[in-house]
Amino acid sequence: MNRLQRALDAIVERVDTPAPIVLADVMQDNIDRMQSFAAQHNLDVRPHVKTHKCVEIGRRQVDAGAIGITAGNVGEAEVFAAAGFDDIFIAYPVWPTGRKGARIRRLAETTRLRLGVDNFAAIDAIADAMEDDAGRLQVVVEVDCGARRSGAPPDAAGDLATLARKRGLVPVGVFTYPGHGSASPDARKRAAHDQEAALTAAVHSLNAAGISTAVVSAGSTPTVEFSTSSVITEIRPGEYVFNDLNNSRLGACTEDQIALFVAGAVVSDWVSDQRILDVGTKALSREGNLEIGYGAVAGTSAVLSKLNEYHGFLPLPAGDFRPSVGTVIPVVPNHVCPVVINFEELIVTDSTGASLQRWPVDARGFLN
Amino acid sequence: MNRLQRALDAIVERVDTPAPIVLADVMQDNIDRMQSFAAQHNLDVRPHVKTHKCVEIGRRQVDAGAIGITAGNVGEAEVFAAAGFDDIFIAYPVWPTGRKGARIRRLAETTRLRLGVDNFAAIDAIADAMEDDAGRLQVVVEVDCGARRSGAPPDAAGDLATLARKRGLVPVGVFTYPGHGSASPDARKRAAHDQEAALTAAVHSLNAAGISTAVVSAGSTPTVEFSTSSVITEIRPGEYVFNDLNNSRLGACTEDQIALFVAGAVVSDWVSDQRILDVGTKALSREGNLEIGYGAVAGTSAVLSKLNEYHGFLPLPAGDFRPSVGTVIPVVPNHVCPVVINFEELIVTDSTGASLQRWPVDARGFLN
Repeated sequence: MNRLQRALDAIVERVDTPAPIVLADVMQDNIDRMQSFAAQHNLDVRPHVKTHKCVEIGRRQVDAGAIGITAGNVGEAEVFAAAGFDDIFIAYPVWPTGRKGARIRRLAETTRLRLGVDNFAAIDAIADAMEDDAGRLQVVVEVDCGARRSGAPPDAAGDLATLARKRGLVPVGVFTYPGHGSASPDARKRAAHDQEAALTAAVHSLNAAGISTAVVSAGSTPTVEFSTSSVITEIRPGEYVFNDLNNSRLGACTEDQIALFVAGAVVSDWVSDQRILDVGTKALSREGNLEIGYGAVAGTSAVLSKLNEYHGFLPLPAGDFRPSVGTVIPVVPNHVCPVVINFEELIVTDSTGASLQRWPVDARGFLN
Repeated sequence: MNRLQRALDAIVERVDTPAPIVLADVMQDNIDRMQSFAAQHNLDVRPHVKTHKCVEIGRRQVDAGAIGITAGNVGEAEVFAAAGFDDIFIAYPVWPTGRKGARIRRLAETTRLRLGVDNFAAIDAIADAMEDDAGRLQVVVEVDCGARRSGAPPDAAGDLATLARKRGLVPVGVFTYPGHGSASPDARKRAAHDQEAALTAAVHSLNAAGISTAVVSAGSTPTVEFSTSSVITEIRPGEYVFNDLNNSRLGACTEDQIALFVAGAVVSDWVSDQRILDVGTKALSREGNLEIGYGAVAGTSAVLSKLNEYHGFLPLPAGDFRPSVGTVIPVVPNHVCPVVINFEELIVTDSTGASLQRWPVDARGFLN
């Protein structure tokens, strides 16, 4: 990954560290490759914007052929709707606390809005909040496929969709998230298999209730390669746009497909064989563990062993890598999503470092 | 901590979850108690704004008697300077990447600005960046007291201050951070002892170089109780303003002194003896481990066992606590600082829930 250092060197005088650097060419290749894969398997792509929270990147995904976007909460959907995105799926079993019911109703006036539901009480609460406008809101029943997180048992999907229809909402299908596919490289295929079984059962459950399933929606970057069953109509990958070390370890991307890193400066070098970088949890978030560390320096075997809020601890491996104070180096995150939300803007260049743009992380603060 | 649930219940209809709730009365007590402690020991208080990043809270700290504020980077200092704070110490060995040198020079034009330094190269780089204005910038030499993070050996402090003076900067003293005092309750006192020894040695080193030490600055919420040596002139606690479970475990606060929690809703309950909350890493950050979990429900023994980005996994302990879907409950974070930066605003009430204000987290995005 020395190419990351080369790109960084070309723009370094314009980068205040720490800063998230995006290689637009690598990102565009990631977007196009996912779209080609989906086209080959007759799948719609509805990328999850949680990874980038950036309108400019969402536009590129739609320009490449995405049919709409996936959001994780109402706030993200509002930001993208205000920017002109008109087909949004909040893939989350939202409970309408506070003003959220009214916010959902307002969003549905101008956007084709889909909302996840996984339980009877929430369907009632959301239908109540929609008042006379329930018919504007499509709902998608979440079923569990083994992640043991949210999602109803697949055979309950029909009853949930029936209640939604009875309350005037528009049930359009089912979705799931194979989160257990991120446990190991081997888990990916097994989780995708579980996903197919759960979605198939959920489709049967809706159809048995007389409800058709236009939408049968699957996750996720680590499992998408195996999510090609004929029952599935759309995929909702998020991380593929940037990729990261976790996906690389799972075999879901190569290191060359990682499109985002954090530029950090060496700020202190008094402890022998250690450098302190200005990259701590306030830049990287605490994603990792003692075994894999908290982020790696591209082109080296050096890994951050510990993070404080503004400090990253970098033990130096044996060898030539002995950066002096003031050196700016590329840190590749384990998990990219919690990095992006720490920053106001992405510094966007390409592998040659020939250009530099700043794109706002538009939806970074809107997390409810 | 059932009082947190009571305060939450009083405002719950105006809270879109997840949301950070501040009890202003508990916070004000924390501020006042720290100020009394400092007055009693003849110490100045210079609170670290990393914990709240909120101008309104910084003002309350100054109104209570703080002599100025501590920031962790240039961006935080800029936000608070723009809001009228005129005495700011960036307690970090900044390397002036990109435009940072010019930003520091600009800040020093309108604010009494102090900057941490721990190495010769950075002193030169900062002096270069200050151009003819070096005399406007006070520098404070960081020394290590055992955290093995940043900071020069105490006996190098005099040489560093000498170079700073030669370059036209204004060396005013020394500082350290006893980070190793957060390792365990017993470590607090030992680390404070190490801190005193390192600061004493550093003062001698500066004095031997003919440089006086108006500022001898110490951390930190966990160690401040023991930071009362006569060599110390100021303390820089941050977390005390809100407190959190980590400080409570260390014995640095009581649970009744915790002034911030995250309101989360139960959104799914299909897995038996488990609830899913809409509180994941995008709200809490990943602060914790398998042993202590990732946040606790106030007034219960329930602890989040795992976080995804938008989902918190809450195994239910034996007993009566069986919240239904839609219930909004107070989650107390392990480490409060990485929570606040995830949000646009703090919801501020008091222990009775009688009022509700929204205070912006002004400096949340400015992390370089």
